[in-house]
Amino acid sequence: MRLTLTPRDTAIIDLLVQAANSLVDGADRLADVVRAAPDDRPELALAMRDAEHRSDEITHATMRRLNSTFVTPFDREDIYALASALDDCMDHMEAAADMLVLTRPKALPEGVGEVLAVLRRQAEETAAAMPRLATMKGLKDYWVEINRLENDADATYRDMIQDLFRGTDAMELLKVKEVIDALEAAADAFETVSHHVETIAVKES
Amino acid sequence: MRLTLTPRDTAIIDLLVQAANSLVDGADRLADVVRAAPDDRPELALAMRDAEHRSDEITHATMRRLNSTFVTPFDREDIYALASALDDCMDHMEAAADMLVLTRPKALPEGVGEVLAVLRRQAEETAAAMPRLATMKGLKDYWVEINRLENDADATYRDMIQDLFRGTDAMELLKVKEVIDALEAAADAFETVSHHVETIAVKES
Amino acid sequence: MRLTLTPRDTAIIDLLVQAANSLVDGADRLADVVRAAPDDRPELALAMRDAEHRSDEITHATMRRLNSTFVTPFDREDIYALASALDDCMDHMEAAADMLVLTRPKALPEGVGEVLAVLRRQAEETAAAMPRLATMKGLKDYWVEINRLENDADATYRDMIQDLFRGTDAMELLKVKEVIDALEAAADAFETVSHHVETIAVKES
Repeated sequence: MRLTLTPRDTAIIDLLVQAANSLVDGADRLADVVRAAPDDRPELALAMRDAEHRSDEITHATMRRLNSTFVTPFDREDIYALASALDDCMDHMEAAADMLVLTRPKALPEGVGEVLAVLRRQAEETAAAMPRLATMKGLKDYWVEINRLENDADATYRDMIQDLFRGTDAMELLKVKEVIDALEAAADAFETVSHHVETIAVKES
Repeated sequence: MRLTLTPRDTAIIDLLVQAANSLVDGADRLADVVRAAPDDRPELALAMRDAEHRSDEITHATMRRLNSTFVTPFDREDIYALASALDDCMDHMEAAADMLVLTRPKALPEGVGEVLAVLRRQAEETAAAMPRLATMKGLKDYWVEINRLENDADATYRDMIQDLFRGTDAMELLKVKEVIDALEAAADAFETVSHHVETIAVKES
Repeated sequence: MRLTLTPRDTAIIDLLVQAANSLVDGADRLADVVRAAPDDRPELALAMRDAEHRSDEITHATMRRLNSTFVTPFDREDIYALASALDDCMDHMEAAADMLVLTRPKALPEGVGEVLAVLRRQAEETAAAMPRLATMKGLKDYWVEINRLENDADATYRDMIQDLFRGTDAMELLKVKEVIDALEAAADAFETVSHHVETIAVKES
């Protein structure tokens, strides 16, 4: 059963839209770090860190509003979980940039570019889906597509892991694995976001 | 205070029973992968993956019912947590099979067989306990036994870790560790399931 | 809106105070293990394990009371999350001691001493803050300080990671990383505790 949306309610949806938009920016900042020469990465990682701070602020604003308002557009706990899940996407993308700077692998597997493209697409799809929470229309296409993209990222991740473990350089494996584990966690986190959206949509239908 | 169980309620318990039964199957499929020769493992891992997909479908069916029904046998959030926890057991068992296929360690420590036996026993105990949610009788024995089994798995895991770190082959350590970490996570996940059952039982008593 | 605190309510706050006090003890036991000669560590790790068992018992007592009482001082789910988060701090500190014993690294980076000092301070601040849940006064200083301490631990952790990955000994990196990852997880866990306190405080204000 849908509740009528009051102005108070739309404020929370607006914050979720902002959070999702910040993920598109985050995916771009992460791609900048990866594509850069190793010596240029620390400075570009600062821009990634700024994006992560902005995402944190949006999450905090969402939580504050959630804790201080009596009327919410959906179940309070579902919004809480959704806002946390959006923030997790950014945290994992920032961790990937960070580990790249800290570990300095000699080279990255080609699959990294594919997973970055998946993350950019997941972020765009998520940003396009959040405003639809106001009407609950067209959300299924979103979560089906996010799931498909996550499967793509997972297949690429598995290929990269298999190749890494066929190598003989344990130090290099450890460096690359820190980066690709964070990328895979980011792709998973976008899928978790879509699960929370699905939960909300099923309850409202 | 116990609510009277209506037919609607038992449908959710039925789904939890199905999920737990699928874990017994999963433990068997995992043992098949481990015992096989390395070249036979990829094909056997497909059967493990099928088991995981079936478990996923049961979890989704549980969540859909949970989100669309007004009357649930226990607190909605406890059932949600229990269904997710059951699914996590399967995910970790599948990850163990998967990492074994992807990393191809030269050999596995003997302790792996012991942890597999623990997982099989935990799955059986869990499958035997789920139907008791309908009457709330005999559940304490279940969670005490699961905890005891987890302690066994943990002791074996620690022995294997100690041995691995006494070695000198970092690549081989990394390969084996991916597998035994996933096995240990599976044993932990069965204990998490039992904690959720305990929470439900304490509330209902 | 604050509820009046009845004797029943203070029992739960008392348990949270006990849990936080046990973390100060845990931080001291962990420091004992780290500072000891490698051969003396296994025995000192038993004292750490005892501290972890006491913390577990306090957590179980909190959960039991929470599941069997109708009146709680704050939202039931927030207390549940807070008690679990306190227990997680201890689990990560115990894991750090445990991995040190199991992996036997040749040497630990100097930063480990700095992170131990942060953990001791976080535990003290947490123990000092828990009784303030009865009046809700002076809690903001606490969570601001915990966040500042976590940032210190994080900066030290990142320096250690960077140094480790500049090395060439993959086995030694793996040993040290097990220990410092657990320490960093403990510092994060204290911050998670403070987030739950903040959630409670915002709702009550």
